[in-house]
This record gives sequence, structure tokens and C-alpha cells, in this order.
Amino acid sequence: MTSVEQHNRMANAIRFLAMDAIEKANSGHPGLPMGAADVATVLFGKYLKFDPKNPLWPDRDRFVLSAGHGSMLLYSLLFLTGYEDMTMEDIKQFRQLGSKTAGHPEYGHASGIETTTGPLGQGIANAVGMAIAERKLAEEFGSELQDHFTYALVGDGCLMEGISQEAIAMAGHLKLNKLIVFWDDNKITIDGAVSLSDSTDQIARFKSVNWNTIEVDGHDQAAISAAIEAAQKSDRPTFIACKTIIGFGAPNKQGSHKVHGSPLGAEEIAAARKALNWEAEAFSVPADVLDAWRKAGQRSDGARKAWEERLAASAKRGEFVRRFAGDLPEGFDAAIDAFKKKVAENNPTVATRKASEDVLEVINGLLPETFGGSADLTPSNNTKTSQMKSITPDDFSGRYMHYGIREHATAAAMNGIALHGGLIPYSGGFLIFSDYCRPSVRLAALMGIRVVHVWTHDSIGVGEDGPTHQPVEHLAALRAIPGLLLFRPADETETAECWQLALHEKHRPSGLALTRQNLMPVRLDYAQKNLSAAGAYELRKADGAKVSIFASGSEVEIAVKAAEALNAKGVATRVVSVPCVELFFEQSDEYRAEVIGQAPVKIAVEAAVREGWDAIIGSDGAFVGMKSFGASGPAKDLYKHFGITVEAVVAAAEAKL
Amino acid sequence: MTSVEQHNRMANAIRFLAMDAIEKANSGHPGLPMGAADVATVLFGKYLKFDPKNPLWPDRDRFVLSAGHGSMLLYSLLFLTGYEDMTMEDIKQFRQLGSKTAGHPEYGHASGIETTTGPLGQGIANAVGMAIAERKLAEEFGSELQDHFTYALVGDGCLMEGISQEAIAMAGHLKLNKLIVFWDDNKITIDGAVSLSDSTDQIARFKSVNWNTIEVDGHDQAAISAAIEAAQKSDRPTFIACKTIIGFGAPNKQGSHKVHGSPLGAEEIAAARKALNWEAEAFSVPADVLDAWRKAGQRSDGARKAWEERLAASAKRGEFVRRFAGDLPEGFDAAIDAFKKKVAENNPTVATRKASEDVLEVINGLLPETFGGSADLTPSNNTKTSQMKSITPDDFSGRYMHYGIREHATAAAMNGIALHGGLIPYSGGFLIFSDYCRPSVRLAALMGIRVVHVWTHDSIGVGEDGPTHQPVEHLAALRAIPGLLLFRPADETETAECWQLALHEKHRPSGLALTRQNLMPVRLDYAQKNLSAAGAYELRKADGAKVSIFASGSEVEIAVKAAEALNAKGVATRVVSVPCVELFFEQSDEYRAEVIGQAPVKIAVEAAVREGWDAIIGSDGAFVGMKSFGASGPAKDLYKHFGITVEAVVAAAEAKL
Repeated sequence: MTSVEQHNRMANAIRFLAMDAIEKANSGHPGLPMGAADVATVLFGKYLKFDPKNPLWPDRDRFVLSAGHGSMLLYSLLFLTGYEDMTMEDIKQFRQLGSKTAGHPEYGHASGIETTTGPLGQGIANAVGMAIAERKLAEEFGSELQDHFTYALVGDGCLMEGISQEAIAMAGHLKLNKLIVFWDDNKITIDGAVSLSDSTDQIARFKSVNWNTIEVDGHDQAAISAAIEAAQKSDRPTFIACKTIIGFGAPNKQGSHKVHGSPLGAEEIAAARKALNWEAEAFSVPADVLDAWRKAGQRSDGARKAWEERLAASAKRGEFVRRFAGDLPEGFDAAIDAFKKKVAENNPTVATRKASEDVLEVINGLLPETFGGSADLTPSNNTKTSQMKSITPDDFSGRYMHYGIREHATAAAMNGIALHGGLIPYSGGFLIFSDYCRPSVRLAALMGIRVVHVWTHDSIGVGEDGPTHQPVEHLAALRAIPGLLLFRPADETETAECWQLALHEKHRPSGLALTRQNLMPVRLDYAQKNLSAAGAYELRKADGAKVSIFASGSEVEIAVKAAEALNAKGVATRVVSVPCVELFFEQSDEYRAEVIGQAPVKIAVEAAVREGWDAIIGSDGAFVGMKSFGASGPAKDLYKHFGITVEAVVAAAEAKL
Repeated sequence: MTSVEQHNRMANAIRFLAMDAIEKANSGHPGLPMGAADVATVLFGKYLKFDPKNPLWPDRDRFVLSAGHGSMLLYSLLFLTGYEDMTMEDIKQFRQLGSKTAGHPEYGHASGIETTTGPLGQGIANAVGMAIAERKLAEEFGSELQDHFTYALVGDGCLMEGISQEAIAMAGHLKLNKLIVFWDDNKITIDGAVSLSDSTDQIARFKSVNWNTIEVDGHDQAAISAAIEAAQKSDRPTFIACKTIIGFGAPNKQGSHKVHGSPLGAEEIAAARKALNWEAEAFSVPADVLDAWRKAGQRSDGARKAWEERLAASAKRGEFVRRFAGDLPEGFDAAIDAFKKKVAENNPTVATRKASEDVLEVINGLLPETFGGSADLTPSNNTKTSQMKSITPDDFSGRYMHYGIREHATAAAMNGIALHGGLIPYSGGFLIFSDYCRPSVRLAALMGIRVVHVWTHDSIGVGEDGPTHQPVEHLAALRAIPGLLLFRPADETETAECWQLALHEKHRPSGLALTRQNLMPVRLDYAQKNLSAAGAYELRKADGAKVSIFASGSEVEIAVKAAEALNAKGVATRVVSVPCVELFFEQSDEYRAEVIGQAPVKIAVEAAVREGWDAIIGSDGAFVGMKSFGASGPAKDLYKHFGITVEAVVAAAEAKL
């Protein structure tokens, strides 16, 4: 068997597994796996550094299938190269409930799935994050422990999505030369030809953002090899445009949008079998082909062993292992505790964004793995502490990234950094712009990864910038995302607690909603216990309370003052601080009932829409908050104008009593 | 006074109004108004076709300040050129509560503000939409009625945001040659130099998406003039890169990020006064300068009068006026009514995305102003009806746009089309990808404009594509946006009603959440009244009901069957269909109380998260829906797996009874 023949048979194994699985599921996307099979065969067959027996080897090359609808390409590769948790039975279960082989690749379902893709453009931005992580860790631990490539395969959809521009501009600026992106250039989208909606010269586009570019015939294995070897030597990220035929091998349907997202049908599969001279039955791989693939899966075994030896000999071994395990260093909780003690001595009146900076100063001093940044709002988000030197394209010794005005790629890159391992990414933005990166936040929640979003300017407290910059629906919208923890601390003590919780969450993303404006301290006494951990807790007690006031963040101050006013009038009133609704609803029924309490009047105060609060105060509870968008004006005027005041809370209580 | 001198004084008037207003407000962004004053002076002074006395003249040139933080540039221009509703008093009230001069330009606050900007990148995409509308209407009504340019001014922030890539790729593909974009190339962002985060060659980037490009010194009026004249003759959209000095004229601060977003301070303003040789007091404009500006404001008076004459003489006058008034044609409601009658004869089992196509077939036959499209999901969204020929770069006689895989720019372009007037844009996407365009949806709601999003594949009913494609939090997240109407019809009749309501909403955007899967009809009898108009209504009555079941969309079928099962067991059960939560909460207290009813057990059924439903069923109500992300598998398996079934509803009712 010549090498060309072997290559073709290896590639065809991918094609037929894809055809067969999609046919059986009666659902799926054969076009990409068939069209990109040659590119994937060259990459996985000859170049990718990976070890199916050690799928989490920290120095493996990363491969991201950004065009996630082509999931059968990845599943086929995992099976063929010998990942033990991807069996032929799993391939047969494609797109069935409970299977590892979901419609789109899902992180955590099987080894070798480096990230969840499907929503277009996310994968390429994840890959940028992985390449950032690699470069940073190589700087920190040396090339003997970190020295790998990150590859991504993208389609036209990924490249049309705006996030791709943010991501490639970021990568080109940072000269991420170990990032190599293959474009499956098949000129087809769901509506038909790409030319229906786009005329972009992609090569020129990537050149404009400082990329190395190469064009190849995506079915010419030698050309693909040469391109990868050239890319590996580039001083900049490389874009390899691979001209392919979508659905390659399906003689009557290839090259058309009909093969993009539907099974081929038995007849066309039979025709493909003939056209590609493929003898094997459905769901079977000829022995010679499987053997060749399994050998490819063992190709990096020596490299991995050599790496293990280097790690064993490294003085940095302990730290490297800890960092990739994602464990926090000893002393973390004690440091937060000490910080809380200090806060309780001063009880400063401070914006929570500033409180966050103070906590971060402690965290970043203790955790070398935190990797900070901001989407061009550094002076507003207070995310850059004294330890955080800025990263530049030529110097990755810093720990702070100026991500640029690119919220979406920032969030997706943070996902990639977290997925890579070894670093804990956090970055700043305005809460209003959580909308710009929502698809990536959602994916972090779906994947269950530790990224922390520092969302400042979290209400009409923004003031003069007006309604375009004042979140009113964002707290509710973020709380609606399963698996995301949204923290809204009320003062410096709660801010420290929320950061502590966020960092302990190894398998959940967090967002911290923080104020622009100063807040009065409400937690006056030091408590070792992290009270915010329960999501909500009684902040001010009152025997035989007639009124319970629930509030988060900046409105806890209003709640406390209103309670004081009501208590002074003889109306026993308690206050519950609610720094994290999601955690509160994870508590026991007993705890929840106790915290919600028996007071006949329940009031919630939050400078945002009511949606979600009825779950705590009931549909007959009173809500003091926003019913509309905000307005431009000084923050104090706005709180008054929109009726979010101590007086309004008192009046609401009295009206209900 | 030479022309150069006059130009400089006119530009300086902008600069000092900006400095003064921002100083007085002690808040705002002087950098852009000062840096871009020369560009704006040339454009407004010599080229822009506009009439401050007739600000809504349909054939005016549109000007979009995409870099909305530079709002004082626009307010100054509106005042100087003589818009009657922009007085010096308004300028003095900059950023104060209730003023027209909000922190960022807000559509509807004053004439001449063509769109709300501030969230970066939105404006340039709005401008693309306006240019699309102009080209389409010129095709339809002839150049005697529609023949204008669309100008936009963008900063680095706009160009870094991904939406800008989607927008410029769309515009370049469509050869929107009457779109002219100025880039305020000042090399500064909030974090510092642009070079901290970006190395893009913007000229090369725009060329790669088929734009004409020109580079000028942004303080050289002759060069700016020449560039505009060349751009007006281009056969493609034009990008004019204007090298500027941010904060031009502030001698000690210009050129640095310190002038971007903070008042200059009295001392620096005094220094600027000296440097620019400006004699006038704060908030006063020398008579010669004001006179020159007011003349500029009258420059297009003749053109407007000639246009009025052409309109008066046009056979298309009535239709043109109706279209720009935004009124629906006579017979619209009757046509929907007739459609509903026909539906009631067959009561088809049909997916609501197909029902939507059927209604659109009627609507598009009657309303020439509907402008359809999809973000590359035409065969899935069912948005293209028989009347809808596809638009191509060379032929705008069609009414259907293949927007490409660009949800964000699609939504923002739709905003621009609606703002332009003369067309009603609707476009399709998957509901999951409402996240990709959320910032534009929010702005449509904030502005109060009629755009309609057709969001199909609205739940786990998506099936095999899995959780990346299954919205579970999106209904709650969209309902949280003030001013947006989210419709989720249950069958073909409700789909017709929801479309009718959406199109009648002249001043609100709508989204229709529609199913991929077939639904049983639940509204069996014809009713002339639009029952969906109340947001929720009793679909199945039951005397002395013990159980009320509330549901929307695909889950109404489940609710109806569960009610039948309960009634058969002797448990009197009624069903309330909730096609639009927002409209329901706008009804009278009496109606709401009546619809919610007195049944002791309340159950809501929706294949989505609970958030929001407590407002209807109370925190003690039962909810049958999603508590997590979905999964990949056949839709029927998923409904069963996640417990959204008739049996589960019956069991929930029995457990509560």
C-alpha cells in the first residue's frame, strides 16, 4: 500500500463512519467530515502531538473543531486513533439521548473533546485562548514542560461570525505563532453558495490582522503536509485555506448544500462506497486502516514519556501539577479570612469594583495562576493589581491582558484558557456588555469551567452614561443561565466572600456584578464563616418581624436603612442579603424557608427588573426596582427618579401592612 | 474671513460646546468631538443633505455617530445647524436627568438623532441597514424619491467589535456604494494606545471585504472634501480613514487617553481657548460662526423643495407616504381574519415555523413593505415566501436578504432598516442565537422600533442538535428586556394572531419563538377577536376549577391533554394559553386576576427555566419545565427524559391537590 493509498483509505474511514452514523441517527452533518477528512488525516496521522492513552497530557497539542456541526469528524478520529472511551458502539449511538456522541462535540462527554463547539465562531476564539495559555505557561515553566501547538478547523460560518474577527485580530496582535487554523473552504452554507451572502477575500483579511497565510488544495495530502510544516515555523499565527469539496466522495450530492446538514440516504452511501472503492460494511473499518490509525495514535508515545521524565526532574513539578489539577494553593482561605478581618476593622465605604481590586490584590499575590485582563476598561473595572504587568506581543512575562474592545472573543478566549489548564482567567467588562459575550458565558456554564467575569457598573448607578450603559435586565438574564453563578456583593466583606466562592468553584463559571458607586458597609462584624456561601442570609434580625426586606448589592444599603426606619416606627423588620440567588436555591428547603421567613410582608429591592424575585417574595410581595430602561443623569438623581429609595421601601412596607 | 479660517472657527465652535457641556456636567467624552470636529464640519458644512426644519424628510442623507460616546459632537452640530428642538439650554443640560442631551445619543430625544448609539459597533451596522433600505426603496420608488447617502463616524472601539466585521462584510458584498464611513483614527482607547491590544491594518481589512478606501489627514479640510467627493462616486462602500488627534486643541492633554472620557478641567479649557484663539465665553458662539453654521443648515433647502415637488407629482405618492408613515395597508386585518377562518376549517397539525410561513405568505402578498431575510437559516426558519425573490449585489428588485451567518449585524441592520423608514424588516434565526444579537435586540427595544425576529427551534424540541442549540434560558432572558414583545404561539391560529400583533406594533420590536416540531392545534374554533392580544387567555374553561394550567407554545398541547386527563379523573381543570407574557402584564388588574383564576393549584408548563413564571403561578405553584441545559437526542425522548409530559403535569397537579 503506497502512502497516498493509505492516506486515502484512512480518510475514507472517517468519511464512512460519518456517513453511517448520520444515516443511522437520521440526523447530522456529513458535509464537513467528508470534505475535511483529508486535512484531518494529515494532521492527526502525521503531526498532532497527542496520546489517546493519556488524553489529559498537559503538553499535548490541542485540536478544536470550531465547525462543531461536523462532530462526526472528531468522533471518528477519536475512535480510530484509539481513545478508549470512544467505541464503535458510541459511534452507533450518535445523537442518541445519553450518548457521548452528541450532535455537537461536548466537552466532558469523551476524552479528546477539548471544548464544546457548535455555536459558530466560538471554537476559533477558544483556540486563541488555548494558544495564549500555552505561551504564558511556556514563559513560566519553560519549553521543557509547555511547548505545543493549537490547531483549529473552521468553516465559513465561523469566519462570518463577528467573534472570529475579534479572535483573529487578538491572535495576530499577540503573534501567537503556535496557533494554526485550517479553513474548510467549501464555498457552501445552509442557504446555498457562500456567494449568496459573502465576498470576503479571507486571505487578505487574515493578512490584515498580521497572520501568516497559506493556500492549499484540501484534498492534496502533500500540500497539506507542507503547509503544516511551514506553519509550525511561522513567527505569526497561520491560516491555512484548504479548498475542499463539501461531502467529498458522495458522487451525486458532493459540492452542494444538500450534503451539509442531512443524511445522505442509503442510495447515495452505496454510490459513495462504489466511488471511493470502499469494501467495508457499515460501522466496520478494514483491519489495515484501523491499524494505520492506531499507529498514528501511538506516534507521540515517546514524546510523552520524555515529557514525563522532564516533569519528574523539574524543580517546578509540584507547582505545575497543582496548577493543572486546578487546586488552589494552601493558605488561600486563610488569606481571605485575614482580609475580611482587616476590612472589619475599617469597614470602608467603597465601590464594590474597588473592593474587588482590594481582594484581587490579595488573591493575585498568592495565586500565580490568576490571569487578569479587561476588554479595554482597565481603569473602570479595577482588574489590574500591583502584581499584574501587562502582556505584550513580545513579552508574556506579565499576567495581564489588554483584550481590546472585544467582549465576545475575550470571554471565549477565557474559556480556552480555562480549558487548557494551568491558569485561572478573569477579566473585566461593564455588566451591560455581558450581552456582547453571552454565547461564550453560556458555553462556560454548559462546559462547567472556572472563568470569572468581573462585571462592573452594574445598575443605573452608572449614572450619566445613560440607558445604553445601564443594565436593568442583565441580572435576571444571567441568573437564567443554568450553571452560572452570578454574585452581587453588597460591600467589601461580601466582595471578598464572593471572590473566595468563585475561585473555589472548579467546575462552574462565575460573574461578579459590581458597582461603580460607593457603598456603605453593611457587614460590620467579622465572621469567619463565608456567609455569602448560602447565597442569601439574614443580615439584620428582628424578633417577630412583620417585614422582611431582601436585597442584593448596592440596594442592601437601602434595605438596611429602610429596616432601621421601620424598626424606629415600631415595625419589626429584618433584612436578608442575597449575594447569589443560584446558591440560595441550592440550599436545603429548611434553610430557604428559614431565610425567607414568616414575616407577612416581603419586599425585594434591586435596581433591576423584578423577574425572578417572585420566587423569593411571592407574586404578592412588593418589589422596589426598575420597570423600564434607565436614563442619563447623576446616579443619585436616577435612584430618586426611579423610586429606589429608603422612603420608597418604607412606603411599600406600610402599604402592605 | 478665508474659507480655511471659517472652517477652523466652525470646527472650534463644536470643540468648545463639547468642552463646556462636558465640564458643566462634570462627565462625558471630549476626545472624539474635538478630534473629529474637522471631519464633521466638512461633512455637515458642505456635503450632508439635510434640512433642520424638516428633520424627517425621507430623502435626507443619514448620519450615524457610531462612536456614540462622542455625543456632544452630534448635539453641537444639531444646535449649530439650527434644529429647533436643540437649544443652547439643551446643550447646558447635557447628561442631566430628563434632558434631550443624554450621555449617548438617544433616538427620539431630539430631531436629527437617527439612531441610539453607545454600545460600540451598533451604529455602523445600523448604517449598513439604512443603506440597504435606501437602495431597496430607490429600486422601488425610483431615484426621484430615494437617492441619498448614509454616513457613519466610527472609532477604534466600533472597529474592534466583531459586529463591525459582520456589517462591513455585508455592505461590501452588497456593493452599498452610497455608504460612506469615516474612521476617527486617533490611535487611543480607554486603556491607552490602540497598540496595546491591536495591530490591524484597517485599510487592508476593508479592502478584503470589497470596500473602496481612502486615507486622509482628519484635520485637513481640503483632503476631507476630496475624499467625500471621491467616495460619492465609488461603485462600492467607502471607508475614509481620517488620522486625527484625540482631544485636538487641548494643548496639554490632546493625543492621550486622558481626554477620552473625562472633562478637561477649567485650566485646560482656558489653555485650549488660548491655543485655538477662541474669544467666546462658555456656551456662546460668535455671531459669524453661528451664521455660517445656520447657512450650512439651509444649504439643502432647495433640494428638499424640489424633492417635495417630485413627490407631489409622483404616481407613487400615496404609497410612499403611507410607507414612511409606517401605516399598514387597508385590508390587513381582514386578510388575517380570513386566514384564521381558513385555519379553523382544517386545524392543521403543523410546526409553528411552518405556520409562520403560511401567515407570511398572506402578509407578504399584501404588504410590499415587508423585507424578509435569514441569517443563513432560510430552509429552517421558513422565512422566504413565494413573493420573496432574493436580493443580489446587482439586483435589489427582490425583497429577501441572505444576511449570512451574522446574527448580530443582521439584527442591527434590521434596526437601521426600520429607522430609515419605508420598510418593515423581519428576519429569521434560531432562538438559541438570539444571544448572538442581544445587544441589537435591546437597542430596538430601547428605541421603540418595529423589527420582527423570527426565532425558530425554540426549545429542546430541537432534538439531536443538542444543548448548544436548545434554548432553555432564552425565553426568560428575552422577557426580561423592557419593551420587547416575545410571542410564543401554540398553533397556527395563535401564530397568525401574534404576527398580526407584531406588525401593528409601530413602536415596539417583537420576537416570535417558533417550534421546529409539529404541534397539535389547540384553538379549534374560529374567533374574530385576536385572543393573543391580551397576552394570556382562558383556552379551556372548567367550572369550579381545582387546577389551572398555564403554558405557552409547544407546551400548550401538553397542558390541554393534561387537563383532559384530570377532568376525566374528576378534577376540574382549566387551561390558560400564554402567548405573550409582556402583553398579559399590561392588562388590567381585573383581567389578570380573572385569567389567573381562583383554582387552588396552579401549574405552569414551559420547556424552559422557571424564572418569571412565579409571577403568574406564585412561588408555591408547580412548574413543569427545564432545570438544566438540554441534551442531544430525538425530541420526543428529550421531553420524556426531562419530564415535560402530560403524565408529569397530571402528577404535579395530583401532588398539589
